[in-house]
Amino acid sequence: MGVTLATLAVRHNCELRGDPAVVIDHVATLAAAGPGALAFLANPQYRSQLGATRAAAVVLAGADADACPVACLVSTNPYLSYAEMAAELHPPAPLRPGVAPGAWVAADARIGEGTQVDPGAVIGAGALVGARAYIGAGAVIGAGCAVGDDSRLMARVTLYDGVRVGRRCLVHSGAVIGADGFGIARDEDGRWTKVPQLGSVVIGDDVEIGANTTIDRGAIEDTVLGDGVKLDNQIQIGHNAVLGPHTVMAAFSGVAGSTRVGARCIIGADVGIGGHLTIADDVVIGGGAHVASSVHERGVYGGVIPADEVRRWRRNAARFSQLDDLARRLQRLEKAAREADGSDT
Amino acid sequence: MGVTLATLAVRHNCELRGDPAVVIDHVATLAAAGPGALAFLANPQYRSQLGATRAAAVVLAGADADACPVACLVSTNPYLSYAEMAAELHPPAPLRPGVAPGAWVAADARIGEGTQVDPGAVIGAGALVGARAYIGAGAVIGAGCAVGDDSRLMARVTLYDGVRVGRRCLVHSGAVIGADGFGIARDEDGRWTKVPQLGSVVIGDDVEIGANTTIDRGAIEDTVLGDGVKLDNQIQIGHNAVLGPHTVMAAFSGVAGSTRVGARCIIGADVGIGGHLTIADDVVIGGGAHVASSVHERGVYGGVIPADEVRRWRRNAARFSQLDDLARRLQRLEKAAREADGSDT
Amino acid sequence: MGVTLATLAVRHNCELRGDPAVVIDHVATLAAAGPGALAFLANPQYRSQLGATRAAAVVLAGADADACPVACLVSTNPYLSYAEMAAELHPPAPLRPGVAPGAWVAADARIGEGTQVDPGAVIGAGALVGARAYIGAGAVIGAGCAVGDDSRLMARVTLYDGVRVGRRCLVHSGAVIGADGFGIARDEDGRWTKVPQLGSVVIGDDVEIGANTTIDRGAIEDTVLGDGVKLDNQIQIGHNAVLGPHTVMAAFSGVAGSTRVGARCIIGADVGIGGHLTIADDVVIGGGAHVASSVHERGVYGGVIPADEVRRWRRNAARFSQLDDLARRLQRLEKAAREADGSDT
Repeated sequence: MGVTLATLAVRHNCELRGDPAVVIDHVATLAAAGPGALAFLANPQYRSQLGATRAAAVVLAGADADACPVACLVSTNPYLSYAEMAAELHPPAPLRPGVAPGAWVAADARIGEGTQVDPGAVIGAGALVGARAYIGAGAVIGAGCAVGDDSRLMARVTLYDGVRVGRRCLVHSGAVIGADGFGIARDEDGRWTKVPQLGSVVIGDDVEIGANTTIDRGAIEDTVLGDGVKLDNQIQIGHNAVLGPHTVMAAFSGVAGSTRVGARCIIGADVGIGGHLTIADDVVIGGGAHVASSVHERGVYGGVIPADEVRRWRRNAARFSQLDDLARRLQRLEKAAREADGSDT
Repeated sequence: MGVTLATLAVRHNCELRGDPAVVIDHVATLAAAGPGALAFLANPQYRSQLGATRAAAVVLAGADADACPVACLVSTNPYLSYAEMAAELHPPAPLRPGVAPGAWVAADARIGEGTQVDPGAVIGAGALVGARAYIGAGAVIGAGCAVGDDSRLMARVTLYDGVRVGRRCLVHSGAVIGADGFGIARDEDGRWTKVPQLGSVVIGDDVEIGANTTIDRGAIEDTVLGDGVKLDNQIQIGHNAVLGPHTVMAAFSGVAGSTRVGARCIIGADVGIGGHLTIADDVVIGGGAHVASSVHERGVYGGVIPADEVRRWRRNAARFSQLDDLARRLQRLEKAAREADGSDT
Repeated sequence: MGVTLATLAVRHNCELRGDPAVVIDHVATLAAAGPGALAFLANPQYRSQLGATRAAAVVLAGADADACPVACLVSTNPYLSYAEMAAELHPPAPLRPGVAPGAWVAADARIGEGTQVDPGAVIGAGALVGARAYIGAGAVIGAGCAVGDDSRLMARVTLYDGVRVGRRCLVHSGAVIGADGFGIARDEDGRWTKVPQLGSVVIGDDVEIGANTTIDRGAIEDTVLGDGVKLDNQIQIGHNAVLGPHTVMAAFSGVAGSTRVGARCIIGADVGIGGHLTIADDVVIGGGAHVASSVHERGVYGGVIPADEVRRWRRNAARFSQLDDLARRLQRLEKAAREADGSDT
């Protein structure tokens, strides 16, 4: 059931160096690969493992080909080529179409052909689920939701009422889409009144949403995720935020309410982006950064203190609270030095 | 089915400028509003949108009334007035009382009149759910829990055994209330033994809890949330923490074990508050701050490095690790300058 | 149904000071304890409460025994001794073996003797659940999973297909184990292709996993948690990460992909550990730190700016962006001072 190197090379537009008749039937790491295994080298940190690999073939960049002791598939983008080949070698299990016993589907909900609904899933009134979709065990799809063709909602995903998810999306377990945004208004006594959250969430095509990520519904208009957005686990998207197409965010990052993030941005892990901001297209933000003002220029941004030996860190952190004072004292010394210099002349 | 401006003005104690007979039937943003729409202006960032609005009326502060091209409802607290009017214009769908097929209710659990229990909900032995409550699909209410009248537990909320939730609360999907606190004791070999978590969680009235937020049960006594507390998504409240009434926290923030946070505090997003601390009433903590010691004075606190262009940030971050050294060198220069000054005299 | 102090002292290897016949039947805090209650003193912050306690007995260290006004059990590790005694005094409710109505178990799944499966739980094809285990309401166990004897999966835990959990583990509500790692490959147009996540998750014995924590499956090989690992709530473990035995992590912390954390590490709350790193055994990392490079030496590490009064913090944060410049200016002054000194000579 494998695929020859010749076939992989042609299908995935790679240059083959080695025996085209060799059959590949699974993927493996450089270090663990054996006969029949396809490995890849994309992160230079693993280059040292290339020389000893026993893979049947390795997907790699041209610059690494000479050092490869086995057959190789040379690609201009080895990680992408590997991704495509791995998907071909390890296709997902086929769906078992139908509504399982123990799933609860409202009488007026519509479910497309070839869609699998697992036990414990609940699909609300008027909801529309496309064809060849997957609704996992215990997933809850609210009234009036729409889920596009070929999308997969894994176990225990929640869509609140009226949420729309595009085609070929993948939403992981525990994600909550469409809960109320955090809109509260304070009275003169410091008590809070809920501001009704009347918008919804609209998610484009080819979006992936990680486990336990939360995406709030808009206050008045919708929260929007563009096509091709990829969100890792435990991300929070506030009400009325807009993420441009093909923007990706790593785990623990958040976008506060009404902020617009551009297209093709790359947001690292644990990044906080404040509310009511605008982030340009093609912005890269390093892990841990706190973004408190709009970013109008494409570019790379960061901002976190690196961990350090604890006593040294504590000494430096204590100095941080004196930093403005230190700067002023430095200015005074500079002024005195300039004056002394002047008086010397 | 709308409401006249005259009625809104009287009910919500606003001064009306404009035609009292105009009928409002929905809310909209300043930019998108059209006939029949009520908009609001509270955040000055959106003031530039006022002049071009086509809303039927705008809720705003007195200072903005003259610039409003359409009817307006002048309020001393426009956001609060808007919240109340929006709730009137867009009431939640009425409950469908009863226990749905596919919900599992223990024989000795009691469920109040007018309460809706959705498919897949599980209500444990001896649990008590009040009147006019909502228990969403897949919500799990442990044995001996109490949920007050008019409270709503959205889909897939978990209450562990014995948790008590007050009246008019709203708990969002994926929230977990009453899981074990993180209590572990280390032996001489570095292995950990679980400390039994024997307390529970007690939540007051009018509390809102965000999606995928976790609130741990107490180790011996209870974890307590006062009346009117509002928690955003993905918050973590440690065992035996106490949050005073009307305190609010934005997403990703956490309070570690046994810390007492006062009343009416406002905690920004991604704030970490350490364990065994005391935070006074009316404390405001800006997003991203790490609070490692008690805060005894009301006031505003913050503490995070703002994101910066990556090369500049890296240069500065590298200097952070030398900060104590820089401060000492500055002191030496100052001392030398003082001595030089003295010798000059 | 209580236990005498004599019995507790012998069973838990403590020195008893007081009447061995006194009967203990519950635990309580020093401040709230009354007759029949066992309290403990481990955190010195609570020492001031010892003198006024009305506990029947207190577990404490030898140094505190003289100050104890009531009977005491002297231990070399009072918190550990307390944990063991509390577990003895407050054993968990016995299981009710069997599969509840409303749970869905695949025909070829196997469930061990004495195991309780609650309503709404879903157990997939070929899954193997051990003896005396607990599968909570709404928990979803994927196809081919293995759950060891005496393990407890609380309500609404998700195990994706093929995940293996050891014996005596405790997984809290909302945890998601085995979702896809965040593997995506970028093409020349900035679009992302999913990299198939083909590994699984393997969890050792005696592991505790907190509420809403997420542990991703490996890309090719497995993500691994060693025996005795304890994870708090809302933690994220990336694909192919390896946590050594008896390592613990507090809430909100994350380990990015392919990082290996050693044995017996103690990771505070809100710590971010980058990808492809190695953390040695016995490393302690303080709350909030961002670890961007490998840690090869056991020791204590930290790195966060402490919260401060907001105006002071803002002044200092503004200076942070000038820090490299300040350091260079200091160097110039030092150079000038050295030269002046030289010229004086």
